[in-house]
Amino acid sequence: MKNLILTLFAIVFCGIASAQFGRQQQIEPLPEGFKPASTNTFLSSYPAVNAETREALFRVVAPTAQNVQVDIGGKKYDMAKDENGVWTGKCGPQVVGFYYYAILIDGVAVMDRNTESFFGSNWESSGIEIPEGPEGDYYRFNKNIPHGQIRSIHYWSDINGLERHINVYVPAEYEKNPTKKYPVLYLIHGWGEDENGWSVQGHMANIMDGLIEAGKAEPMIVVMPSGDIKTNSDVREASGNITDIYVKDLIPYIDKTFRTKTDRQNRAMAGLSRGGMQTTMTVFTNMDMFVWMGTFSGFFVRGNDGVENTFNGVFKDPVAFDEKINLLFISTGTEERSPKEQVEALKKHGIKNIVYHESHGTAHEWLTWRRALNDFVPLLFK
Amino acid sequence: MKNLILTLFAIVFCGIASAQFGRQQQIEPLPEGFKPASTNTFLSSYPAVNAETREALFRVVAPTAQNVQVDIGGKKYDMAKDENGVWTGKCGPQVVGFYYYAILIDGVAVMDRNTESFFGSNWESSGIEIPEGPEGDYYRFNKNIPHGQIRSIHYWSDINGLERHINVYVPAEYEKNPTKKYPVLYLIHGWGEDENGWSVQGHMANIMDGLIEAGKAEPMIVVMPSGDIKTNSDVREASGNITDIYVKDLIPYIDKTFRTKTDRQNRAMAGLSRGGMQTTMTVFTNMDMFVWMGTFSGFFVRGNDGVENTFNGVFKDPVAFDEKINLLFISTGTEERSPKEQVEALKKHGIKNIVYHESHGTAHEWLTWRRALNDFVPLLFK
Repeated sequence: MKNLILTLFAIVFCGIASAQFGRQQQIEPLPEGFKPASTNTFLSSYPAVNAETREALFRVVAPTAQNVQVDIGGKKYDMAKDENGVWTGKCGPQVVGFYYYAILIDGVAVMDRNTESFFGSNWESSGIEIPEGPEGDYYRFNKNIPHGQIRSIHYWSDINGLERHINVYVPAEYEKNPTKKYPVLYLIHGWGEDENGWSVQGHMANIMDGLIEAGKAEPMIVVMPSGDIKTNSDVREASGNITDIYVKDLIPYIDKTFRTKTDRQNRAMAGLSRGGMQTTMTVFTNMDMFVWMGTFSGFFVRGNDGVENTFNGVFKDPVAFDEKINLLFISTGTEERSPKEQVEALKKHGIKNIVYHESHGTAHEWLTWRRALNDFVPLLFK
Repeated sequence: MKNLILTLFAIVFCGIASAQFGRQQQIEPLPEGFKPASTNTFLSSYPAVNAETREALFRVVAPTAQNVQVDIGGKKYDMAKDENGVWTGKCGPQVVGFYYYAILIDGVAVMDRNTESFFGSNWESSGIEIPEGPEGDYYRFNKNIPHGQIRSIHYWSDINGLERHINVYVPAEYEKNPTKKYPVLYLIHGWGEDENGWSVQGHMANIMDGLIEAGKAEPMIVVMPSGDIKTNSDVREASGNITDIYVKDLIPYIDKTFRTKTDRQNRAMAGLSRGGMQTTMTVFTNMDMFVWMGTFSGFFVRGNDGVENTFNGVFKDPVAFDEKINLLFISTGTEERSPKEQVEALKKHGIKNIVYHESHGTAHEWLTWRRALNDFVPLLFK
């Protein structure tokens, strides 16, 4: 009887739904060495990745298309059609890490509907994780340790008259210590992404859980706001306003809503790419509020300005700077534009509280930033 | 100086990113009466909706496509190309509510990359909200009231040997009452959707915030798990296992992690569509654990079984049933298959603790379920 009801149910509703847009899902055999990518939607077999060869297989059902390609890592790969209109293509070997990619249907860049959607380059994108083996364990879910929570919160910003969405990581122990107060790291995404970047693409919760459980990092709250409030072409104004939002709306809201330590010794800010720029803008104009800072692939000192004048002269007196800022963490991937020369200039000028970090073999992408976070966080609040 | 750095920054990184996959974003003028849909990604002008006429405008950049249509509400609408390869199309008037939709590029159903992605029909989909005017205020963000939090949690399930993701709503007052315990509603999604359905497509946090602030509902915790663990074709087995996961993994995890009232008077379960079926399966086989239940567009009594025999005879003794279950809430949209006849049969048989609810003019979709939740929750834990 129960089975009959369920069968009827399945026929009625699944039938209606799948006839219109859906697909029937079934687990399919994959070529040897390939597994569904960790970025796939629930139970999707494709795209599939081979951890050893670092190749990826893609599949799209498109019987009416004339030409289908996959566009990943700056290269287009042709896909081939079988008699059922199913197109398959292979790419790689790829460098390990997270890639945005697109399927080209007759030249139009669309998403792969069997892959999680990520917000990147200011629109919805497909993404795929090319696995890197055991080295990546620090950002994967570890079933043997306690886990923090990512809290999704909407709050009203008076500064820009908008409902704003933030994600807030609290450590696993937060619930168990109802009177304990915690230091706070404000962690900012980059251009074209949003407040979900660090928790989704970056796996920051797994990284934090692991560091805290191992005793390498202080238990802390991590606040991930949206750093984009205007258009790209408007980046100057947007970034101008964003400091106001962080300082006048966001920090007071967090200190009111969570059990935070509110002195500057217990407040840090870091960001990747454009978020690194927002970090420098915010911290350097509010030195009474922050002691710790990090810029991941996002720190710029213009050579011809000289370290004395850049950022309105914040580095002019290196002793005064080191008294105010305990840590200026500057990181980069070795395959992207390096800030090494500027870091050397700052050190030569006498700045001591500077840590320079390189992610070997990675470019302007999430593996660089996961590694940076993993090395940055243990230095905070100590 | 600051502006120069930012400009350089914008040129370097935005340039690289947008050249590959991205788009330049700018706010564009829309035809009179049209506004960007609430479901659009950050700052996207299209799709645009007209709240008065309930029409929607779609736009896709696809210079190399031969034919582009929009597929929404069971109907395909042709789009027209301008000299820049930008296709525009209009649909409607639509009935108010939330719609999944697809763009057909030369016949292939793809997503609109300027719209939020939603998981529906077991793959990633675009969705659009056709606004319904002030009646919808109950599910919109209200800046004048306190807001609860949606907590995103990964936990390990021993039953099916998987990392599982859940969303948990806690009321605004939860943080301010560190010793208070709360009743719990387990709220399940339907076929082809996932644990994000209620919080994203359903706007449940706004609904709960409003009801609690108005004193209409008890402050409560709402747990939203994933109800899909196997393939569609495997729905019987999946649903069999899912009761074990709810009862043996999930409920103990929640009672361990949150400040919950753990007696059956303070535990409810409800679900939509297939989630309604999972609710009946779980509650009717664990009557010592639940007192309150709801099935939204998901309750089935087979006429020829009779109310005495259906669900293994749970209704056979109506007095005994009413002693165990305080509330059996059964709801439907008037434009979908109605369970009214079965509800009447149950009432005639002597079941008293039954509430029947209809959402006028809506079908098997989210507006039906938002309304159901809004009317169901005030009846709980009283």
